[in-house]
Amino acid sequence: MSATKMRVAVVGATGIVGREIVKCLNARRFPFHPKIKLFASHRSIGRRLPIGRGSVSVQQLAKNCFDDVDLAFFASTSSNAKRFASLATQSGATVIDNSSAFRMTPSVPLVVPEVNMNTALSQKGASIIANPNCSTILLALALAPLHKQYGLDRVDVTTYQAVSGAGQAGVDELKTQAINWVQNEPLEPSVFASQTLFNCFSHDSPVNLETGYNGEEDKIIQETQKILGARVRVTATCVRVPVLRAHCESVSVTLKRTATTEGVRDLLAAAPGLRMIDNRVANKFPEPLDATRQDSVRVGRVREDLSQPAGRGFHFFLAGDQILKGAALNAVQIAEHLAEHLAGHLAEQAAHRDVFLL
Amino acid sequence: MSATKMRVAVVGATGIVGREIVKCLNARRFPFHPKIKLFASHRSIGRRLPIGRGSVSVQQLAKNCFDDVDLAFFASTSSNAKRFASLATQSGATVIDNSSAFRMTPSVPLVVPEVNMNTALSQKGASIIANPNCSTILLALALAPLHKQYGLDRVDVTTYQAVSGAGQAGVDELKTQAINWVQNEPLEPSVFASQTLFNCFSHDSPVNLETGYNGEEDKIIQETQKILGARVRVTATCVRVPVLRAHCESVSVTLKRTATTEGVRDLLAAAPGLRMIDNRVANKFPEPLDATRQDSVRVGRVREDLSQPAGRGFHFFLAGDQILKGAALNAVQIAEHLAEHLAGHLAEQAAHRDVFLL
Repeated sequence: MSATKMRVAVVGATGIVGREIVKCLNARRFPFHPKIKLFASHRSIGRRLPIGRGSVSVQQLAKNCFDDVDLAFFASTSSNAKRFASLATQSGATVIDNSSAFRMTPSVPLVVPEVNMNTALSQKGASIIANPNCSTILLALALAPLHKQYGLDRVDVTTYQAVSGAGQAGVDELKTQAINWVQNEPLEPSVFASQTLFNCFSHDSPVNLETGYNGEEDKIIQETQKILGARVRVTATCVRVPVLRAHCESVSVTLKRTATTEGVRDLLAAAPGLRMIDNRVANKFPEPLDATRQDSVRVGRVREDLSQPAGRGFHFFLAGDQILKGAALNAVQIAEHLAEHLAGHLAEQAAHRDVFLL
Repeated sequence: MSATKMRVAVVGATGIVGREIVKCLNARRFPFHPKIKLFASHRSIGRRLPIGRGSVSVQQLAKNCFDDVDLAFFASTSSNAKRFASLATQSGATVIDNSSAFRMTPSVPLVVPEVNMNTALSQKGASIIANPNCSTILLALALAPLHKQYGLDRVDVTTYQAVSGAGQAGVDELKTQAINWVQNEPLEPSVFASQTLFNCFSHDSPVNLETGYNGEEDKIIQETQKILGARVRVTATCVRVPVLRAHCESVSVTLKRTATTEGVRDLLAAAPGLRMIDNRVANKFPEPLDATRQDSVRVGRVREDLSQPAGRGFHFFLAGDQILKGAALNAVQIAEHLAEHLAGHLAEQAAHRDVFLL
């Protein structure tokens, strides 16, 4: 691994998350080696994406394609991740995977950097780090400080999820339906089973026929528990709304130790990755449009849940860009911590070597 | 009061709810006297609305205007109801008021006919009957059978509310924003503080600066308790979504007595006013578009809340037309029960008289 510049690959580089990873690497001046590799399906081969001051051509995955790669972002399907991640790790690369393929594998760290970066840094050698589900990342940013300070007993989350969760095709479908509605033409859903414009529907992930929970809800429940490292009781209801790319979550928490609204608000306002929007006078709280293309997750509407014992129940509402902090930004932040850690590690090795040579 | 035909007035007849009340009276063949009176603000004076096979001209409220009226629907603002309802009741008319003016007055019945029509029928003489808040009506239809069968301990409801809750102007604003977006013109909100298209925001009712609950949430909490006649613990989070006219509600309930998912589903499926949409295989559940212009409230996504003790917690989701069952239809259903009750009462009086004359 190069000490100063990491040799990076992005798998699924032309998808909605892959493109955003490339943008984040550029915009945040991630120390990547100019020979960055972009992989995508055969339809996108040869397409060029802007990198730094130039552009890079998209290639197809092949044997040995990760041989000169330190860090591979996977922004592809779960089945692609299962098929190809081992190619990367066997070549010695670290994989940051945005799919659900490895999230619940006990040996794979599931990381929101503000919350549990330590679980990834404590692992030695090339490995896979999983990027959590988008709704889970946004939620974990707010739950982690609450859990640490007051102890979480139970979490009931209801979502307002953007169509971008289904990729660029979901965004295009909502936009097309708006155009068709204005032009008085039929609105035919294809990405989703139902019309998205002027409608809401239960999340489009498969429903567990036994429990009735859908895949998105199961992910939020299981991943949140893994990230918090605790058997907090979590339940979720996931719903799509006609919003282009930021998710909202309405959250009811029950705490183990009593708190005040001010205490909860101050805690969340100071938490990394969150920005407090909580203006009762102006009735201004987190909204998906305000959160769109923003790094920080908006949180607010902090109030005591008056149906619960005094000081033990609280409501809050959050809005976060599902593609940025919910996916691409979180992955790049993980990479930044890895790069920093590696730089520190190499500096330490060098210092040790100096001491040894003395 | 005429025995067969009720002399009806509609106050606020040209508003979104008033027009729907007139439509419901027509469509449901309510036994109203042809001399129906339609009242509205001065802007609408002289406008004609279709009634039966003809049309009726809109007039302005005036002294003695309720003198020949048996039943007055008020579909106006709360302040108008406070100012003018007594004019009607002093003339001997019964008022069914859709505003929040009298809902929490202890002597005023707050009625969802499927749930507590008895509270209105047990009152003698001319009086005011309050139509509950739209979200409350939809919710009460589902909560009442659950409370009766299992005892409700706690209810946590999160809403997805259509822009029609702010009247025709709210609907027009969302439609205009869709048109402006397609035409690449600026989207300037005026009815709401925020853009509605492709956005969600905390409900536009004023926020209680002390508790942080907004007016809509307080209404749901207080009115639900009054309708159920019980001090059930209720909490609510109300959010506007870019939907034209049906509200959705995600509901978590805690029961006092254990139930099964099948038991809850069967109970709700059999409850009056509800229609069960609960297809886990097809991932098809209640949606606002399907509920639009439908009398019955769609309920589904019934599943056990796995974060609660076994058999004690359940989730469900509902969608109902906010203007129909959430307002106009509920008011007209109250009137139908009153008319039926009155007819029965008169028949009974006639029978008594016959007996007496014998």
